[in-house]
Amino acid sequence: MALVVDLHAGRDKGRRPSLGLLTALVADDLARVNALVLKNMESQVALIPELAGHIIAAGGKRLRPMLVLGAAGLCGYDGGRHIGLAACVEFIHTATLLHDDVVDESDLRRGLATANTVWGNKASVLVGDFLFSRSFQLMVTDGSIDVLAILSDASAVIVEGEVMQLTTANDTETSETAYLEVIKSKTAKLFSAACRLGAVVASRPAIEEEALTSFGLNLGIAFQLVDDVLDYSAPEAALGKAVGDDFRGGKITLPIILAFRRGNDRERVFWRHALEELEQEDGDLERAVALLHKHGALADTMERARHYAKLARDGLDIFPAGDAKAALLEAVDFSIERSH
Amino acid sequence: MALVVDLHAGRDKGRRPSLGLLTALVADDLARVNALVLKNMESQVALIPELAGHIIAAGGKRLRPMLVLGAAGLCGYDGGRHIGLAACVEFIHTATLLHDDVVDESDLRRGLATANTVWGNKASVLVGDFLFSRSFQLMVTDGSIDVLAILSDASAVIVEGEVMQLTTANDTETSETAYLEVIKSKTAKLFSAACRLGAVVASRPAIEEEALTSFGLNLGIAFQLVDDVLDYSAPEAALGKAVGDDFRGGKITLPIILAFRRGNDRERVFWRHALEELEQEDGDLERAVALLHKHGALADTMERARHYAKLARDGLDIFPAGDAKAALLEAVDFSIERSH
Repeated sequence: MALVVDLHAGRDKGRRPSLGLLTALVADDLARVNALVLKNMESQVALIPELAGHIIAAGGKRLRPMLVLGAAGLCGYDGGRHIGLAACVEFIHTATLLHDDVVDESDLRRGLATANTVWGNKASVLVGDFLFSRSFQLMVTDGSIDVLAILSDASAVIVEGEVMQLTTANDTETSETAYLEVIKSKTAKLFSAACRLGAVVASRPAIEEEALTSFGLNLGIAFQLVDDVLDYSAPEAALGKAVGDDFRGGKITLPIILAFRRGNDRERVFWRHALEELEQEDGDLERAVALLHKHGALADTMERARHYAKLARDGLDIFPAGDAKAALLEAVDFSIERSH
Repeated sequence: MALVVDLHAGRDKGRRPSLGLLTALVADDLARVNALVLKNMESQVALIPELAGHIIAAGGKRLRPMLVLGAAGLCGYDGGRHIGLAACVEFIHTATLLHDDVVDESDLRRGLATANTVWGNKASVLVGDFLFSRSFQLMVTDGSIDVLAILSDASAVIVEGEVMQLTTANDTETSETAYLEVIKSKTAKLFSAACRLGAVVASRPAIEEEALTSFGLNLGIAFQLVDDVLDYSAPEAALGKAVGDDFRGGKITLPIILAFRRGNDRERVFWRHALEELEQEDGDLERAVALLHKHGALADTMERARHYAKLARDGLDIFPAGDAKAALLEAVDFSIERSH
């Protein structure tokens, strides 16, 4: 816990931002999204709702569908299409998580056994495919080719990001630029598409669509960078996964990239040994955390995250003040200040 | 080889049907489809075209895209949309193959090492996802919600079939009805969608769209049943995979279902041992083939296949005679008489 406080030094600790405004703003809509998600994971093949229900019930913050709803609110949308599109985004996200856990060989997600641990990799691959197909069926129900273009483009880019990450996995010489490309694709693209959809359903002019696209992209980058920091500093219960998961998996994230480049030869031998060859022993995680602090790698990653958060906030400048704008701005603050 | 000839006893062996008419009919279009497929598997992430190129170059018959082209020809279509849609169908098929090989833990496909053997399961899962996304991007380029509905529905049904097969895997008590549901979903649905698209692009009346849908569905069922038979009888070189793959994987196919139900207690102990517990020893495949013959299981599976082939042919009755019709009818004959 000490680390988290350190990294937020100088902030008012009495009023840590939450997703409270956004949650309150979209509560009714989100209940409808959740109902639609449950309805659309039905299948006469029992394993499908069983496995999909496991990962969807595990919860998570529902941040991506909330962004669709919040952005639609910001754009003054008063129709019903945003509900279906928020469900589409959640389905794409969930399909990605199922395949990610197979690719990362993860055992835990949000404190629960992953679907691949319970039902095996094969079932996770196929149910991920199913949710992905369902997402496109839902888009067809919506009926807009513009929406289909945004979400099929996003899907292709997300997968490109995952493949990029696979090919740079365990490579301590990955550059910061290459890493940013990975997280723009694998994480930020869907945030971006989610926010953009708010403007699209409301038929807002291009300048607002672009502003929300930029807002989502920068928020997504900030969000992922903070995730990377939390993996070395969060209280376990809060994150729902063990601290050090990225380390144990040999994942190269920005804190590692910074510490590796700033380190001496002996330290680089340690990083290569631990992350490329995955030969880790007791005390290695603690040593890694100590090196990250020695080189200011966590603090500087947070600094980068705050930079993107600022870009995200600026993206909303053209929108008038109001509940929706306040909620989205608070979501940006939350993405930086969160401990989970 | 003897088995194949046996099963086709009574046919004129001098004139075994091929895909010759269909191949000749769509040759120019198919070259354009192949070029479009190559173009659309490009990505700045080098592993994607590398892995996708491996499985696409391995070839296969390109039967599904040829069915889109042939059906469009039958409907007198003279535009260009069938090229893109044939590529969509091939991408969905290829994505399915990549994930299938991961799920089945296959080593060989069409005589070549599978992508999962060369690049690993993770890369195969992700590149399958990429091709699936690309397929939807191509549909968006086409711009028709009707097409998107047909192919997103088909995708969901295909995956349901795969999950059904996963849950009934190694279960010797699977019923013939349950098995037919599996192959209708996992194989015949895409054949059916491919043929239906021919009528859709040509804006033909519902009766023709339905006729081609039925043609494709029944052709697909026949095709899969013959595949099941060939796995116990084809000359290895012709099939491009080893005879007995289904047996070694414990796959429950129609020949097995028939032989199991017609067998005595001692035989059922053998089937359970070999296919449920996968405890196989030298000579077991030969014993399995002998039992399949003893109970007429291969011959009766061929008989079922011929039944569906007949339904497929009847589906084309409403179309006037001509090159396209002759080519599609020959494709039905080929699906039954083929040795690969």
